[in-house]
Amino acid sequence: MIKVLRLGHRAGRDDRISTHVGLTARQWGAEEIIYSGEKDKNMLESVEDVVDRWGGDFEAKYENDWKRFFKDFDGFTVVLSMFGEVLDKGMEIIDNEVEDEDDLLVIIGGEKIPSWLYEEADLNLSVGSQPHSEVGALAVFLHEYNSEMLYRDFKDASIEVVPKAHGKEVKDLE
Amino acid sequence: MIKVLRLGHRAGRDDRISTHVGLTARQWGAEEIIYSGEKDKNMLESVEDVVDRWGGDFEAKYENDWKRFFKDFDGFTVVLSMFGEVLDKGMEIIDNEVEDEDDLLVIIGGEKIPSWLYEEADLNLSVGSQPHSEVGALAVFLHEYNSEMLYRDFKDASIEVVPKAHGKEVKDLE
Repeated sequence: MIKVLRLGHRAGRDDRISTHVGLTARQWGAEEIIYSGEKDKNMLESVEDVVDRWGGDFEAKYENDWKRFFKDFDGFTVVLSMFGEVLDKGMEIIDNEVEDEDDLLVIIGGEKIPSWLYEEADLNLSVGSQPHSEVGALAVFLHEYNSEMLYRDFKDASIEVVPKAHGKEVKDLE
Repeated sequence: MIKVLRLGHRAGRDDRISTHVGLTARQWGAEEIIYSGEKDKNMLESVEDVVDRWGGDFEAKYENDWKRFFKDFDGFTVVLSMFGEVLDKGMEIIDNEVEDEDDLLVIIGGEKIPSWLYEEADLNLSVGSQPHSEVGALAVFLHEYNSEMLYRDFKDASIEVVPKAHGKEVKDLE
């Protein structure tokens, strides 16, 4: 089971980024996204609306006390940051240390990540050592970890895409 | 040479996403990002600020008439959308049809992409057939296409990260 913890959401300014983070987590098979920072019902609803229409049982939650959540998490914790181990080596560490039955918590910033987290997470992993995007980093990391989830079926979907190299086709399943 | 064209930027609402798109393009070795939609000096400057500090010669530009830009582009054009060909098959098509010396234009949405573009681009490619994120899609696509660029050196950088599985280390190069 994969969970994603998104730190430091700011209502308004981060709406779109936080929504993208949630949908990216869902796309690659995470079960849950947990938002911290400012509570933002509208943003949670925009993620839930996608789940309603496109299926699956992904959940979006809010957690005020993310430090406690992190400390209580029983599994392997990865923080994605530009300061972490390079991607290939990081994925090797995960291959060696994480069993199939282990739970994985992937933490991404927003606000400045407190420096103790770079020490205390089981792995600080970078997707490039340059400033770029927590959405991009999450997508590439999950794709490396879980690429077989990318084109799976989502149960109870009311709509489905037919992939096409040219044009656009959507099937209504209801 | 890779260029990224980002359609339909809205000043204010899309600031963060558009900045992330630009930095993601830079991270994986694109030479240029071209923004269309609303002209937004602040957003362009926030991308340029990163280039100043972290090096390289990536450029961020604004283009009002993106349709003309697209039609005049002399190279292979890929639109990233949830309606496109699945990733593996799409990358195979690119392997077969794009030579090393060919220029590549990667187009991502924002506003609704007009449907003629799904037909007229050389390839409509999906990174998953679910609603997720143009930032995530761009990152994964560029990583598949150009992963060797991820940890390259950026010339004239004033600052550099030392990758670490635990902790954080940044070198001041000036």
